[in-house]
Amino acid sequence: MQLNHTWLPDSLADNRTALHIVKATGSHLILADGRRIYDGISSWWCKPLGHCHELVRDSICAQLMDFEHHIPANAYNDVIEELSRSLTGIFTSMDKVMYASDGSSAVEIAMKLSYESRILNHEPEKSKFIALQSAYHGETIFTLSVCGINSYKLPYSNLLQENHFIDGIPYVNSRNDTLWSDCDFAQDKFDQLFANITKNTTALIIEPIVQGAAGLKIISRDFLSKLVKTAKKYNIHIISDEIMVGLGRLGYYSVNKDILDFEPDFVCFGKNLTAGSIPMSAVVIKNSITDIFRHYQRKFSHSHTHSCNSLAARVAVNYLKLLKNSSLLSDIIKTENDLLIMMQNLAKKFAFISNPRAIGGIGACHLNLNKEYIDKIFTIGIECGIYLRPIGQELYIMPPLYNLSHDLEEISKKLYQVIPQLQAI
Amino acid sequence: MQLNHTWLPDSLADNRTALHIVKATGSHLILADGRRIYDGISSWWCKPLGHCHELVRDSICAQLMDFEHHIPANAYNDVIEELSRSLTGIFTSMDKVMYASDGSSAVEIAMKLSYESRILNHEPEKSKFIALQSAYHGETIFTLSVCGINSYKLPYSNLLQENHFIDGIPYVNSRNDTLWSDCDFAQDKFDQLFANITKNTTALIIEPIVQGAAGLKIISRDFLSKLVKTAKKYNIHIISDEIMVGLGRLGYYSVNKDILDFEPDFVCFGKNLTAGSIPMSAVVIKNSITDIFRHYQRKFSHSHTHSCNSLAARVAVNYLKLLKNSSLLSDIIKTENDLLIMMQNLAKKFAFISNPRAIGGIGACHLNLNKEYIDKIFTIGIECGIYLRPIGQELYIMPPLYNLSHDLEEISKKLYQVIPQLQAI
Repeated sequence: MQLNHTWLPDSLADNRTALHIVKATGSHLILADGRRIYDGISSWWCKPLGHCHELVRDSICAQLMDFEHHIPANAYNDVIEELSRSLTGIFTSMDKVMYASDGSSAVEIAMKLSYESRILNHEPEKSKFIALQSAYHGETIFTLSVCGINSYKLPYSNLLQENHFIDGIPYVNSRNDTLWSDCDFAQDKFDQLFANITKNTTALIIEPIVQGAAGLKIISRDFLSKLVKTAKKYNIHIISDEIMVGLGRLGYYSVNKDILDFEPDFVCFGKNLTAGSIPMSAVVIKNSITDIFRHYQRKFSHSHTHSCNSLAARVAVNYLKLLKNSSLLSDIIKTENDLLIMMQNLAKKFAFISNPRAIGGIGACHLNLNKEYIDKIFTIGIECGIYLRPIGQELYIMPPLYNLSHDLEEISKKLYQVIPQLQAI
Repeated sequence: MQLNHTWLPDSLADNRTALHIVKATGSHLILADGRRIYDGISSWWCKPLGHCHELVRDSICAQLMDFEHHIPANAYNDVIEELSRSLTGIFTSMDKVMYASDGSSAVEIAMKLSYESRILNHEPEKSKFIALQSAYHGETIFTLSVCGINSYKLPYSNLLQENHFIDGIPYVNSRNDTLWSDCDFAQDKFDQLFANITKNTTALIIEPIVQGAAGLKIISRDFLSKLVKTAKKYNIHIISDEIMVGLGRLGYYSVNKDILDFEPDFVCFGKNLTAGSIPMSAVVIKNSITDIFRHYQRKFSHSHTHSCNSLAARVAVNYLKLLKNSSLLSDIIKTENDLLIMMQNLAKKFAFISNPRAIGGIGACHLNLNKEYIDKIFTIGIECGIYLRPIGQELYIMPPLYNLSHDLEEISKKLYQVIPQLQAI
């Protein structure tokens, strides 16, 4: 069937180059003409178990025997409560989980809860947020107000609340970088910043360690660690947007907790949560926030029809069990260095490649190429059997995680087919 | 399992009265203690086929054999394109569909597309929206800016763009009401209004015929028809939010097209779209809007991970086939009068009941009771075996549709058990 009536996301209204997919299995997308394409960015970063994993299939089929979804207002079931227990159990100071169906809505819930808690505490002037330069937290208008990437937010700038942004972020290429663990220079800057904005600011929102839409940029651990601790000192809430990095991508459950060693006020999960099967996002909420709503006996009214969707919840429960009972997380940390070496070797071999970097299950590099060359990568990638989708001049891979060490050989082989063609252009 | 860690929507953080659901089948929710509860509001208005319908089960199981979901960026499949064909095929002047996972995001997409088309056409000053008093279009901050219900938007009023609102809406109790087809008085008001706001306004957003969250209020057809036609005369886009009323609830595919006899610029669908199984929403977009983006070769970047989710799309395709090949839609129109008579009989029997009303598969009435009485209805309802959730003083039923004429007897019987207990309080 020809693509005529579907307006694909991030696309022109008419898209004549879209792939026609007929099947997907493991790490591969199968096209109508029979070609097998390696899913190099795990379908927008959400397929840790690849496609058609039996855990997904079995979870959904089992849940279908009980119910697909029932009203979540004043009603619950064991599946959603078990999921909430697992998610709060990742932390020591978080006690509640609220559910939505996409990342933007999870971030909106966290932002609304933060602001509403200030109103309850008679601090309505605390209505601003602070975000990072190059941040991405979704594309609803409110989440675009904490976006630091012009291409996403400029068309809507007249509609956006003005928020604060932190610039001068120290990016690193790996955990071996000196800046990773030493950013003492930033402390004075943070103190000065927060002293000025504390009165009108409710929360700091971050993508911990990796900024995705900015082009897979790895932020210094020490910089972020100092940032969240300083913000907390000034009574600013921390919203950790772990929609891309959480639940496996970096080899941990929560990047904030496990790498920054810090429990924020809100953690937003999505993507990996259901292994990329059914839309679901979650906001894990700290005791101290919940206590404010308890104290004032205040309902929170984000009344989303599919909050707590049971099919999604059953997959999520079983995915979290797999993380607990398998070596998936530790395997990712072990593979990180192989990914880094692979990217470094590319940079050694090709003069137009710089900044080879890797963390967890993400590898990336910078292409010193003009836009017209970059624009050809998708097509060349497909010809070589790998789905690649550079962001600006940043080429990256974010493969399915379940088979990562084994997949590296195929990925590497295909990158070495794609990249010389860029050199030859 | 006790409810401890899930913060249910529209709820206090700790909810000690939530129902513990263990199964759902047909029109009933089954509780842990074995009680069968009639799902009187079809799980927040989204279960036209009830629970565990074989169409839902078979669709999902079949799709699981091919793929659950793959990246929608520059890739498509036959299932999503078939769905887009079915949805655009409802209309004569709509050519594209864009997908999200919840109603709020669908409305945000429509609002963003409307505004961005103005920017492309060098009219950036057209950034405001016009909505109806008592409107509800979702709970992201941008959609709350077109909300006309104070309880939802007041906490966030400092964060909301100021928009225009239309008051003095003529509500009716049924299609038999004189006002349904005669609202000539409104025309002058509309002309005056639009003459004043056209310069800064991009779109009018409406819930066609029934305002849900306002308390199931039925708006005069003639009033809405004049409103959209006048707006169009002043070059205002029309966004029809049919998330609750579309795809079956009123007995039609599109309420705007089939009752108002008018094709808007954007139609938002959700809820019924997947028969309440998997989160999915859709925005059907008029040619004339798409043409603006075509003319300027402009991408639209709402890059939602689960846009076009295949499991959801497969259910939706088969649900639309069922609407086409069964008598479900015409059955609902036939049942409307029985629902109206049922509500009218309640009003005759109980002095504290007024405004009995019905349209399509919705019946409602006004309860002249204090809040403390209203607050007891949920519990009394469950004791009598029916899930009821009044909105303010409006008691309503919005049952599953697949078995509506047969279910009316059970609904009626249970209402006659619930309501005398309110009288007796």
